[in-house]
Amino acid sequence: MDGSAIEKLISDISKLPGIGRRSAQRIALHLLKNKNRSLLPLIKTLELSHNLISECEKCGNVDMINPCNICSNKNRDNESICIIEDVSDLWTFERTGFYRGLYHVLGGSLSALNGIGTNELTINKLIKRIEDNKISEVILALSTTIEGQTTSHVIADKLESFKDLIVTRLAQGIPIGGEVHYLDENTLNTAFQSRKKII
Amino acid sequence: MDGSAIEKLISDISKLPGIGRRSAQRIALHLLKNKNRSLLPLIKTLELSHNLISECEKCGNVDMINPCNICSNKNRDNESICIIEDVSDLWTFERTGFYRGLYHVLGGSLSALNGIGTNELTINKLIKRIEDNKISEVILALSTTIEGQTTSHVIADKLESFKDLIVTRLAQGIPIGGEVHYLDENTLNTAFQSRKKII
Repeated sequence: MDGSAIEKLISDISKLPGIGRRSAQRIALHLLKNKNRSLLPLIKTLELSHNLISECEKCGNVDMINPCNICSNKNRDNESICIIEDVSDLWTFERTGFYRGLYHVLGGSLSALNGIGTNELTINKLIKRIEDNKISEVILALSTTIEGQTTSHVIADKLESFKDLIVTRLAQGIPIGGEVHYLDENTLNTAFQSRKKII
Repeated sequence: MDGSAIEKLISDISKLPGIGRRSAQRIALHLLKNKNRSLLPLIKTLELSHNLISECEKCGNVDMINPCNICSNKNRDNESICIIEDVSDLWTFERTGFYRGLYHVLGGSLSALNGIGTNELTINKLIKRIEDNKISEVILALSTTIEGQTTSHVIADKLESFKDLIVTRLAQGIPIGGEVHYLDENTLNTAFQSRKKII
């Protein structure tokens, strides 16, 4: 671990999210031991990613074209916008394939603790997007954490003035496959209060 | 996750040891969102690593010079070789700083399950190293797993014919800071059988 280049390699890898120093060492050794099979291809992929992938100016998705494949897809319902915290949420939606509208990536949720206010998120961009386009429904698909719910409230407040705009949020209740005796009190309470008549 | 470049990026990252697909997605998004602060510096570091770091032809360490800083350090005890499984073990030894001899990186331990036989490890290179140099002690510092202990036995067998060569292995017993009631039976048994007279 002498040799500044090795230290720099480990240090740079350990700056990636979710990677501790021990994992970074392991990855660094793996790359150095497999220069041709692993290190060189990774460098090439990262360079290609840098050159080819960019953020969609409309929704914040990442893609090889801008506007992204979703925003420029004529077959999608362009009157519906689903608000999500991160691009990974968009991927989760797209994996299921049931939603055919557009997205808006917020870039996180409001958090005083982490210093994330409305200016750190793309809320103003969202308002402008709704003003400039014919949008009939905004679906709030944020986390059911305190931060996510606060963010939903703030956005809902700002959208109140838009006439004929429907604002919805995801249903809250027992997750499918969930067992009642494992549920936390909040979820059970929410599911009970929002119970649905079936007969 | 359309866009082959993004899929390739996630796929290449998830090939790194200990990184699952979810972590790879998170890292990929982090890199794409911070192209200048994260992606470009990482590319540069990986390129530097590729160009500057290589495996020591003598001991298997990774370093910016070859033979490595340890093998070429005249102040170290070059009659003593510590056998380790991996470069990360070398780093652990060097962090403590009490050992002043040389190392020999085996590249793993024998494992029929993982298809690692004597030819996959640097055992023959070790034998040659002992034949060609004046070595007075070989310290086996392999894991106390079945694979590690098997490997120790195989190496010890091969070293038996060397006259005047001392072969040692690390002491086995209660780890420092360990509490007896948390010890597994094997460790406790070993520690008991190897008990030391103190008065």
